[in-house]
Amino acid sequence: MKGEIRVFAPATVANVASGFDIFGFALEMPGDEVIARLSEHPGVTMAKVSGDGGVLSLDPKKNTAGVSVLKLLEFLNCDHGVELELHKKMPLGSGLGSSAASAAGSVFAVNALLGSPLTSKELIPFAMEAERIACGSAHADNVAPSLLGGFILVRSYQPLDIVEIPINLNLYCSVLHPKIEIRTESARQILRKEISLNQMVIQSGNAAGLIAGLFSGDASLIGRSLNDVVVEPVRARLIPGFYDIQSAALYAGALGCSISGSGPSVFALTQKKSQAENVGEAMVSACRAKGLDCNLYVSSINKKGPRIL
Amino acid sequence: MKGEIRVFAPATVANVASGFDIFGFALEMPGDEVIARLSEHPGVTMAKVSGDGGVLSLDPKKNTAGVSVLKLLEFLNCDHGVELELHKKMPLGSGLGSSAASAAGSVFAVNALLGSPLTSKELIPFAMEAERIACGSAHADNVAPSLLGGFILVRSYQPLDIVEIPINLNLYCSVLHPKIEIRTESARQILRKEISLNQMVIQSGNAAGLIAGLFSGDASLIGRSLNDVVVEPVRARLIPGFYDIQSAALYAGALGCSISGSGPSVFALTQKKSQAENVGEAMVSACRAKGLDCNLYVSSINKKGPRIL
Repeated sequence: MKGEIRVFAPATVANVASGFDIFGFALEMPGDEVIARLSEHPGVTMAKVSGDGGVLSLDPKKNTAGVSVLKLLEFLNCDHGVELELHKKMPLGSGLGSSAASAAGSVFAVNALLGSPLTSKELIPFAMEAERIACGSAHADNVAPSLLGGFILVRSYQPLDIVEIPINLNLYCSVLHPKIEIRTESARQILRKEISLNQMVIQSGNAAGLIAGLFSGDASLIGRSLNDVVVEPVRARLIPGFYDIQSAALYAGALGCSISGSGPSVFALTQKKSQAENVGEAMVSACRAKGLDCNLYVSSINKKGPRIL
Repeated sequence: MKGEIRVFAPATVANVASGFDIFGFALEMPGDEVIARLSEHPGVTMAKVSGDGGVLSLDPKKNTAGVSVLKLLEFLNCDHGVELELHKKMPLGSGLGSSAASAAGSVFAVNALLGSPLTSKELIPFAMEAERIACGSAHADNVAPSLLGGFILVRSYQPLDIVEIPINLNLYCSVLHPKIEIRTESARQILRKEISLNQMVIQSGNAAGLIAGLFSGDASLIGRSLNDVVVEPVRARLIPGFYDIQSAALYAGALGCSISGSGPSVFALTQKKSQAENVGEAMVSACRAKGLDCNLYVSSINKKGPRIL
């Protein structure tokens, strides 16, 4: 066992248009850095948090890094205490799985520090518990891709059934982050609790189509399947200029474009890096035309999950 | 152009648990036989219908074989008239796509008779029009697999987008047909028009899981994904002893078991023929224990669609 370990855990795009609560994929960047050290003090000590604008608590029971590691140590019946440093290198409340990256990075680092008693897949439930505290629901569509990399299907929550989907083509992701904050909890509350049977037929057709497109490496099918008739129409209202940004991305050649997680970030997929950059610039222009400041991330898909630095 | 052609078109299992209106696959047997001949009389003449117990009309505008061919001849601006014989070799109103097999066989036969101006995929809309007359809705989840073979995803109806899904493992299907008739139209009317968002999450997770399982040849994932929380609970009421039949199939080793189309037929999937036979016998026993007479079909998946005899 090493005395200290430093880990990068990736941001993630959840929902992916047609896969509300069931699809997510990991980005190469941005992400969070976590440093974990064995400590003489029992339990979890949050030694430092940076990059959060002073928002996150140093009480381990009140942030996702601390909560997930507390659950993990409890499960492992661990004698050691752990000291954590969390360096946020991505925006909070952005729809890019910020709380999930902190949780994933922390449990991954502590598990590695303890000699990897669990697999990355086995770490998912501990990170999910942290999501319950951060977002009000224990969803897995951010923590699972952050821990495993690649494109993830959460086939079922009860029991939890995580399926890794191969991505059999080159895919790049352009993520526009408009500088407004949307709380996941609020973005869930505005959703209608009932939908029509016809919406389900359309949504599940697209969910199935996206999986088929990823397996067969069919970019056109992926593009046609990036279509959300249930959640996007409701949440778009929270993002000023969403439809202008989406149109700009599609006009610039994106395969598809929708809201990342619960927003406000907007993602678009392309097959080439140069296309992804063009699409990103088009999205930025459309966003700024609404008088809204924003960040842009252009990244390939992260296929490995967290990495030890 | 030959003067006469004889075609077999396969029965199909639609919905396939989690894919209401979007999934279907074709069976090797049973199915319908259609004979098509060029005729001096313009339009379509139904020369003969057998095996229907006298139920089907000889008026070409009132049965799916006639309607689909009328639409096809109209589209092709065809000078020829066509004479059809339809030999039903499968039960009507059984949930096995009887009307779809008649339509698929007829358009396939007439297209071949005319020198194959259209592909099988291009024939789908004509057969769908016939479904509208037979079932009250132009669904494609029977006609598409009957015409193309294999496992079909109807990603979208507007525009129509048919995706062929590879089946990367051996699959056998046991189909129990309890001898009661359920009209597709009635089986649609009893469905709730609204479902919960949570039901959609579960259903689309399973739909995506089934596609992933077929692509990856993962029998266990296919089994876990054959789970319908929306339609089966409502339609099960129409099938006496449905849950006993389903339990018997699963206990005998089926990967999964649900209602075929709008019922009353019940299908189960297995990986081996011997298993399929055992599962089928278990389903028959459970059905007969309810005092209900039934037929059993055990078939591999038909990967080619209709064939010229």
